[in-house]
Amino acid sequence: MKPKIAISIGDLNGIGIEIALKSHEKVSKLCEPIYCINKKMLKKAATELNIEIPKNFETFKTKGDFEIRPGTVHKKSGQYSFDSFHDAINLASKNEVDAICTLPINKEAWSKADIKYKGHTEVLRDYFGKNAIMMLGCKKMFVGLFTEHIPLKKVAKKIKEEDLTQFLIDFYTNVKAEKIGVLGLNPHASDNGVLGDEEVEIFKAIKNANKILNKKVFTGPLVPDTAFSPLSRKSYKYFVAMYHDQGLAPLKALYFDESINVSLNLPIVRTSVDHGTAFNIAYKNEKINTKSYINAIKEAVVLSKNQ
Amino acid sequence: MKPKIAISIGDLNGIGIEIALKSHEKVSKLCEPIYCINKKMLKKAATELNIEIPKNFETFKTKGDFEIRPGTVHKKSGQYSFDSFHDAINLASKNEVDAICTLPINKEAWSKADIKYKGHTEVLRDYFGKNAIMMLGCKKMFVGLFTEHIPLKKVAKKIKEEDLTQFLIDFYTNVKAEKIGVLGLNPHASDNGVLGDEEVEIFKAIKNANKILNKKVFTGPLVPDTAFSPLSRKSYKYFVAMYHDQGLAPLKALYFDESINVSLNLPIVRTSVDHGTAFNIAYKNEKINTKSYINAIKEAVVLSKNQ
Repeated sequence: MKPKIAISIGDLNGIGIEIALKSHEKVSKLCEPIYCINKKMLKKAATELNIEIPKNFETFKTKGDFEIRPGTVHKKSGQYSFDSFHDAINLASKNEVDAICTLPINKEAWSKADIKYKGHTEVLRDYFGKNAIMMLGCKKMFVGLFTEHIPLKKVAKKIKEEDLTQFLIDFYTNVKAEKIGVLGLNPHASDNGVLGDEEVEIFKAIKNANKILNKKVFTGPLVPDTAFSPLSRKSYKYFVAMYHDQGLAPLKALYFDESINVSLNLPIVRTSVDHGTAFNIAYKNEKINTKSYINAIKEAVVLSKNQ
Repeated sequence: MKPKIAISIGDLNGIGIEIALKSHEKVSKLCEPIYCINKKMLKKAATELNIEIPKNFETFKTKGDFEIRPGTVHKKSGQYSFDSFHDAINLASKNEVDAICTLPINKEAWSKADIKYKGHTEVLRDYFGKNAIMMLGCKKMFVGLFTEHIPLKKVAKKIKEEDLTQFLIDFYTNVKAEKIGVLGLNPHASDNGVLGDEEVEIFKAIKNANKILNKKVFTGPLVPDTAFSPLSRKSYKYFVAMYHDQGLAPLKALYFDESINVSLNLPIVRTSVDHGTAFNIAYKNEKINTKSYINAIKEAVVLSKNQ
């Protein structure tokens, strides 16, 4: 049986709804999608886009009624994208769906709507009181982030043996990969302590995690600038990066269009596109790329079956 | 007329000499190479490799005589690689050659030989008393590094308007690119100050540099994790990264084999391969990749003509 997936519709002034409508046929072959948008708003968006609403386009009635302003940051649209996301989470936590997949929100619009969160992951962390792990990637390569949205200067202090050990165990528990590369923090992974010393903590955490798992899952600390070279990528499909850009810059250099965002370590499965609202092309009927969305749906299907 | 290029032979226990011998025919079509290795050591290496020395293999008599120990870190080999490099620099600074190209040294071997430098660039900086700029890349993409071999935790403090302005001016003066992307420091280039504040300094430096040059050469601060996406790379061939792995991890993910290392802002032209001594395959007659070396020679030819 196909899994049910709740889709939060994202910022309606952005590109999300167009992606959802144009991909529906493909998506409904992979799962039973339930779109968190009420019929009135759906009709407004479809009219604006001049796209016919597919017949079997099942919706959940997320409350709200406002004018769509293509490409504009607006609090009403921000609030609606938050409510749509919240409805999707509720459906999943009540087991009415098997997973959720999120379309892009606009952070500034959330801020205008007085929503205190910076993004989806923070909401999930708060909702479930669990330390969600952010993983990005595609079939060829996934990167889990040990630290995320913090200033670069604060990263080094976060690299602590105990926290990282727990992260590695949680990461393994979720992805179940038999070989995971863990990056160092400093240039050349510190060249044996010449360029920083955080690699000592990383080394200990790797050792601890492998001992707890009773097998050699984790390798490292890998030299960060060669960890994603073609040869190294033959050895690892899963990586743990110490900070946001360390993992995401190489990932997006290689696989920008295909990449998705996955929240691990939660009671529910959540995947997401790895791009923004693309306000610049919203409602313009330009050629849009739906690869990331389709991949996010596919991964949600896989993960929901694993659970 | 073909330019003369002095080639420092690198660590003789490593892969450099094999690369030099096997690429000589190709290289001598691009330039007049002068290899900084004496005839006795050359003969030892060629015998060990079972490769015939090409007839027109012009050498400079770098002093030294020791046993070659393939794949071994040794102080004698370390000292010789330093002396070979030093001879190449001397030839260039006396204008007896038009440029130098360096084969890989082993940092640990330099340390064993009590050489105080961590690498080629530091030697050049000291020799010429000038702030050499390290740039890596290939025809498709080059990255200049604002900071290099320092611990990650020390990077943020180095981001100062005045220093970065000077760096940008020097970088432009050397590469003469009309469009150069300058990366931010923090995730999302700080999201307008939410995730760090160093982008303010970067923004001011970009503004200053463009004003001094009286044209809009520099753009940024670019969001680091999308700066190297395929779309962004269509806009920029030259980038300035704030730290080592920010620029080099995406570069090596994309163009590992082709990349070279260039020292800018010096009285002489110096290019280098962008790989190490490869002790694991030295003198084993394995299939070796000479792309980086050939590209380094090509760039040395181009840059020496520009000077």
